[in-house]
Amino acid sequence: MKTMTTLAALMALTAPALAQDADVTPEERRAQSEVTEVWEPVPETVQTPEGQPPSDAIVLFDGTSLDGWESVNGGPAEWTVEDGAMRVGRGTGDIRTTDSFCDVQLHVEWRSPPNDEGHDGQDRGNSGIFLQSRYEVQVLDSHENPTYPNGQAGSIYKQHLPLVNASRAPGEWQSYDIIFQAPVFAEGGALRRPAHITVLHNGVVVQNHAQIQGATEWIGYPAYEAHDCAPIQLQDHDADVAFRNIWVRPM
Amino acid sequence: MKTMTTLAALMALTAPALAQDADVTPEERRAQSEVTEVWEPVPETVQTPEGQPPSDAIVLFDGTSLDGWESVNGGPAEWTVEDGAMRVGRGTGDIRTTDSFCDVQLHVEWRSPPNDEGHDGQDRGNSGIFLQSRYEVQVLDSHENPTYPNGQAGSIYKQHLPLVNASRAPGEWQSYDIIFQAPVFAEGGALRRPAHITVLHNGVVVQNHAQIQGATEWIGYPAYEAHDCAPIQLQDHDADVAFRNIWVRPM
Amino acid sequence: MKTMTTLAALMALTAPALAQDADVTPEERRAQSEVTEVWEPVPETVQTPEGQPPSDAIVLFDGTSLDGWESVNGGPAEWTVEDGAMRVGRGTGDIRTTDSFCDVQLHVEWRSPPNDEGHDGQDRGNSGIFLQSRYEVQVLDSHENPTYPNGQAGSIYKQHLPLVNASRAPGEWQSYDIIFQAPVFAEGGALRRPAHITVLHNGVVVQNHAQIQGATEWIGYPAYEAHDCAPIQLQDHDADVAFRNIWVRPM
Amino acid sequence: MKTMTTLAALMALTAPALAQDADVTPEERRAQSEVTEVWEPVPETVQTPEGQPPSDAIVLFDGTSLDGWESVNGGPAEWTVEDGAMRVGRGTGDIRTTDSFCDVQLHVEWRSPPNDEGHDGQDRGNSGIFLQSRYEVQVLDSHENPTYPNGQAGSIYKQHLPLVNASRAPGEWQSYDIIFQAPVFAEGGALRRPAHITVLHNGVVVQNHAQIQGATEWIGYPAYEAHDCAPIQLQDHDADVAFRNIWVRPM
Repeated sequence: MKTMTTLAALMALTAPALAQDADVTPEERRAQSEVTEVWEPVPETVQTPEGQPPSDAIVLFDGTSLDGWESVNGGPAEWTVEDGAMRVGRGTGDIRTTDSFCDVQLHVEWRSPPNDEGHDGQDRGNSGIFLQSRYEVQVLDSHENPTYPNGQAGSIYKQHLPLVNASRAPGEWQSYDIIFQAPVFAEGGALRRPAHITVLHNGVVVQNHAQIQGATEWIGYPAYEAHDCAPIQLQDHDADVAFRNIWVRPM
Repeated sequence: MKTMTTLAALMALTAPALAQDADVTPEERRAQSEVTEVWEPVPETVQTPEGQPPSDAIVLFDGTSLDGWESVNGGPAEWTVEDGAMRVGRGTGDIRTTDSFCDVQLHVEWRSPPNDEGHDGQDRGNSGIFLQSRYEVQVLDSHENPTYPNGQAGSIYKQHLPLVNASRAPGEWQSYDIIFQAPVFAEGGALRRPAHITVLHNGVVVQNHAQIQGATEWIGYPAYEAHDCAPIQLQDHDADVAFRNIWVRPM
Repeated sequence: MKTMTTLAALMALTAPALAQDADVTPEERRAQSEVTEVWEPVPETVQTPEGQPPSDAIVLFDGTSLDGWESVNGGPAEWTVEDGAMRVGRGTGDIRTTDSFCDVQLHVEWRSPPNDEGHDGQDRGNSGIFLQSRYEVQVLDSHENPTYPNGQAGSIYKQHLPLVNASRAPGEWQSYDIIFQAPVFAEGGALRRPAHITVLHNGVVVQNHAQIQGATEWIGYPAYEAHDCAPIQLQDHDADVAFRNIWVRPM
Repeated sequence: MKTMTTLAALMALTAPALAQDADVTPEERRAQSEVTEVWEPVPETVQTPEGQPPSDAIVLFDGTSLDGWESVNGGPAEWTVEDGAMRVGRGTGDIRTTDSFCDVQLHVEWRSPPNDEGHDGQDRGNSGIFLQSRYEVQVLDSHENPTYPNGQAGSIYKQHLPLVNASRAPGEWQSYDIIFQAPVFAEGGALRRPAHITVLHNGVVVQNHAQIQGATEWIGYPAYEAHDCAPIQLQDHDADVAFRNIWVRPM
């Protein structure tokens, strides 16, 4: 139990000489320190075993099936699953989660195919991860492959170029760790808060709380339109890109 | 002088029941409250007489001369001064302050000419206020004059449309109160913090901490290039726009 | 109608030499410029007559009655109205709007009483404006009246001291123009976005998009607790503070 | 080479029907799309070999020596190095890097000792990582160890509690991946931009662009004081905490 003095105890609390007073006892300083402790809420406990998704993550793809995904054209996802990865079904269209999400932490691993066809620019290993079906983190083979930087791997497509090019060679697995704050809209549809995104590409920060200007546009300037929580969508951009180990934590 | 109890004095400080304990005396609560007082720095005093610039403002135009302005083409500003206002010298080019600025609060009043020539869209009362010679708050006669909203009065040109159209009729004086946070660059030139801007148009919020994507571009997507503090620039867009009562407070 | 060339028209659009090409005609450049025009949504029109509230404002106090206000202790507001102002009913408790608000622009004028009783510090003309009944912009006679700066006029009480002291003398009317972004909470109660606030005191920026740490606390560190839109509240801090000309624009 | 049409080519660029026009050819759409490509600057290339620091990282501790560290009390760092880790030299004081840093990505691994002495709260495995020698990310054994949440592992000490408790058991290695934006000060010392911090604890987001209120304080409310780039500092809080695999990327 705490020991206690009398007059000095509260005198010690008199600003502005607050903490520097040599006459303040350790007990008195401890009492002062307790004023700025915040005891609630107690953060929930999450298990974080090495090499596995956190215990509160929703595993969106565990390497075995496309359960939880559907084609944006309607019907089941028609991409292929083999060797623990899903591969873009070229020509079958984008796929998206059957669940909807708002603010999330998202982990995705992806691999662009060997460049044995001599393509370059946007024609090499192109795909994309659309948060809320609208805001694209570009997937591209950007290994020694010049293109417009606001369209290379790690870019927020046509909005923010990556801080650095952290790309690995085609054929190697790469990771995105994404922190996404969804836009917030007023009841009438007006934008209250724009979306923000942070991306680590292979562990390197390539986007740091970048403010999103609106839905990704290939042509024209991006703009917002009000929407609810929405699926995560993966793009079929006619390249043999593979994905694996996808999990998400709603925040 | 404060009266004092003994055991209760420090017991009262024990979190988490900190402030709700009914046994805490007013003196003890006051002592607790002092822990979160911050006494330094003491904000500087600014006089704010009704209808005049604040005492710490730099008056950039007081209605009598173009001292402190120069043409961006070199040489003195060739705009005209009459009736306490400066008027765009059509064809003489933009003018800018001879001083440079970073973060500022800026007050500007402006007036677009009567629309007796039947122009519309971007051809009616067009001018602009360029913060740091690069980031434009659009000036336009947007009274019953449709154009692309990211180019109307109160917009950050081609980046952010205004939240509402607060325009007055042509021939009436209007005001912009602008809070501008300049971009911050690293020594090597990389962008550390983008610029942000808040604009009140005739007292109404039309931009609220809008994040600026880069230097204003008429064509193409904006981008940043490292620069120092820089002048405030007013645009000659070949229209008889007038300005008056311009002051700035470096922040 | 636009005139047109052939090969050059699209060649001109080839990045990266986009806009600088001397061979690009004005018509071609205009076509390029249209790509970054955003035509929707069209901002709503707001009338902004000099010296009056904007046409889309809700007038919370027009100088004649306390309609639209109630006591936080229950029952009608017991403050007094005279000479176009409302005066704190000392000892009757805080009052609040009967309506609730989220993001707002708020205009308030206030006057601290002559200091004929020789009070100082927090005992001189103390009141407060609580956004959403929780987040306080301090009202205080801070004219030649030292106190802890994170508790003086223009402060976000115990969170952010004002950038400057823009106070007028006691007995003079002063104004606050406030831009408030309410916090946003997830369904489970977690904080998704903290609140932010900008304050102009007598036309001078004293808070610029300050991030709010939680509900205002006299003792201890602020923290957030989830809540809905909520009333604007004025504080009875046992001083003869008066208010007038209060209006709000939901954003 | 691109094929080309004539009149339609620029007509297609007429807003607002810009991109939806069925008569627009793929070539014309491609030309429109090029307007929003940004080709400069080209992000620098960084190698990201699996399980190693990125190629542009400065390795602050590689497991073999305390080169690049010094005691905050003057003289060499007196902590111990064994088995590829550095261990707090209890009673020898904090250590800091001999280099100074501003904006950084920082990776640190740490391990709190087995709790064989039955300590709890702040007395279990306490240390800390001070960005710029001032802003503390708390290190603590927070595995089944209640304390005030704004002082547990993953907190910004006494400012922001972690979003979740991602702690592993004592004796296990844990990681922090930190993105730190340093505060920016004006020449006169005023704060232009507060610091922000993002922290992943064992891969889980526990701080997302949290705004820092000032230098970490055990007693009282935090406040900013102007400073330059500054060392990273590790705390001797009288506990046998170990660190390894520390690297930093200036941003």
